[in-house]
Amino acid sequence: MRTSQERFASACRCEAVDRPPVWLMRQAGRYLPEYRAVRAKHDFWEMVRTPELAAAVTEQPVRRFDMDAAILFSDILIVPDAMGIEVRYEPGGPVLSPLVASLADVLALCEVEPARDFAYVAEAIRLLTARLHPEKALIGFAGAPFTLAAYMVQGGPARSVDRLKALAHRDRGAYDLLLDRVTAAVTGLLALQIEAGVDAVQIFDTWAWHLGPDDYVDLALPYTARIIERLRPHGRPVISYLRSAAAHLEAAAAAGPDVLSIDCTIRLADAMARAPAGVALQGNFDPALLFAPPAVIAGAVERQLALVRERGAGRGYIVNLGQGLTPEIPIEGVEALVNAVRGAG
Amino acid sequence: MRTSQERFASACRCEAVDRPPVWLMRQAGRYLPEYRAVRAKHDFWEMVRTPELAAAVTEQPVRRFDMDAAILFSDILIVPDAMGIEVRYEPGGPVLSPLVASLADVLALCEVEPARDFAYVAEAIRLLTARLHPEKALIGFAGAPFTLAAYMVQGGPARSVDRLKALAHRDRGAYDLLLDRVTAAVTGLLALQIEAGVDAVQIFDTWAWHLGPDDYVDLALPYTARIIERLRPHGRPVISYLRSAAAHLEAAAAAGPDVLSIDCTIRLADAMARAPAGVALQGNFDPALLFAPPAVIAGAVERQLALVRERGAGRGYIVNLGQGLTPEIPIEGVEALVNAVRGAG
Repeated sequence: MRTSQERFASACRCEAVDRPPVWLMRQAGRYLPEYRAVRAKHDFWEMVRTPELAAAVTEQPVRRFDMDAAILFSDILIVPDAMGIEVRYEPGGPVLSPLVASLADVLALCEVEPARDFAYVAEAIRLLTARLHPEKALIGFAGAPFTLAAYMVQGGPARSVDRLKALAHRDRGAYDLLLDRVTAAVTGLLALQIEAGVDAVQIFDTWAWHLGPDDYVDLALPYTARIIERLRPHGRPVISYLRSAAAHLEAAAAAGPDVLSIDCTIRLADAMARAPAGVALQGNFDPALLFAPPAVIAGAVERQLALVRERGAGRGYIVNLGQGLTPEIPIEGVEALVNAVRGAG
Repeated sequence: MRTSQERFASACRCEAVDRPPVWLMRQAGRYLPEYRAVRAKHDFWEMVRTPELAAAVTEQPVRRFDMDAAILFSDILIVPDAMGIEVRYEPGGPVLSPLVASLADVLALCEVEPARDFAYVAEAIRLLTARLHPEKALIGFAGAPFTLAAYMVQGGPARSVDRLKALAHRDRGAYDLLLDRVTAAVTGLLALQIEAGVDAVQIFDTWAWHLGPDDYVDLALPYTARIIERLRPHGRPVISYLRSAAAHLEAAAAAGPDVLSIDCTIRLADAMARAPAGVALQGNFDPALLFAPPAVIAGAVERQLALVRERGAGRGYIVNLGQGLTPEIPIEGVEALVNAVRGAG
């Protein structure tokens, strides 16, 4: 394997690799002192919207840990923002307003023009590919339509998505139109990211775990499937992230992603048994493992990679967590994980 | 079937019933105007600790909807409270202090004497059985040790249980002792509830869905299994509630509960296929269904009960939700669900 970029591309396509590539969700984040140093001088939106800042922060974990891939520093809520919803970042989480509650609210959303509304995203990606390629891979991302609609209807991170489900039960026309419009905006954003040069895109359906199996297939999956379908001609791997993989794995795989990023509700061996051939897997490590002593982390990595060697023929695997890194996670834990993967070549 | 109490007992034992019994988690709660009327005059702890108030609120939904079972109005945090942790109810949820962070903190916890510390629980149950029996069933409950330990270590409802997992990774001795002590207290509380007259007890492992399959078996299940084992001589059905049933169903069933209460991450048909014979099932309806028009709710109930009739021979089923009722849920929805079940006899 010559470069991390090639290793990552091969794993996404289920081709043979010297060792699985590794990157971590929310690897550019508050657990890093160099991230906090930038954040102390700039607010979150400013970092997201200023290509030079976004690029600098994106590079930080890749430089520190020598990971195989960088993920663009951005936020899934840039889509509701572009649709005319105000997004404020408060200590308890983002707050969106006005809330979408009716068909009239959906009709009032702005039409998104990716080249105009996400120009700062394209510019950050161009800066990054110039600095990372051909050594490292760069990943773009967006929120899945169901997850973004949940934010737009609930107003922020909630314990349930009951308001969105209630909208689907009471006014299916408004629900469908909302999801259609978000789907179009997300498709436009991801296509723009690919054109600007990312090696893959990841779609985060962070809130779909609130749905039972039938509702997931009815309310969330068709929109993600449509995005994947429309991105296919662009020729870059699409990674689909879901929580509650134990509940939704087969359904999520049916939407056609190249890579399925799974949380820790399922053992990797079971995910390999359940995912159709040709779909690579990513993720599965519990972020809380990173609180353990380095030797414990190394042991867990060793067991997982042995499983991949034994049963993973013809199936790509990318080391990652089941959820994003949190501010409390110790750098030593991240280091131990990445080093154990890099030592496995 | 003569009474709801008999119907409920038969369903727990997987015996034939005229129709499945129905009750709903958090059925005595803020969605009810008569509950809010009591709550306006008394604070939450006062309601929990005053047998007459707890009994009155417990009865409210049973009287209004003619449900088959009442669940004692109480709170899972009475156990940490009895162990010497202060529990304050704030708008964002309960706040516990001091936090348990080390072996010394675990050693400093108070020894629980159920007859002394939970006398108010026993008294509320005696009031209730006198009023409900022999017509209605009465259910007692407690938090599962893992869930209670999560509250004690995290300090309140959190987005993760990382601190508790970190304690397990870093100081397994302290983790085990904490869980042992909580397990003893919960066992004492549930035995006292049974002696006071409840028809069944439910153990809520509300936070175990944060665990992967191996961690669930390692960190949560053994303690719940121990409680079930110790309660067996008391001769009352034990209901085990878990979220993320899709991930943990077989493991949770292996702990030996009479009834497994499942959330909506799994289809009932799949749960019936996966749960061992002799284990009754409860739950599975998405609370958000109750936002739908009554005819939609009735249709969903009809489909579920048809499935139970077709494939549920020798398997008890109790109608309930996958999670508790929330304040926003309309009374008409609850009414439509209960009426559809009652009309199915």
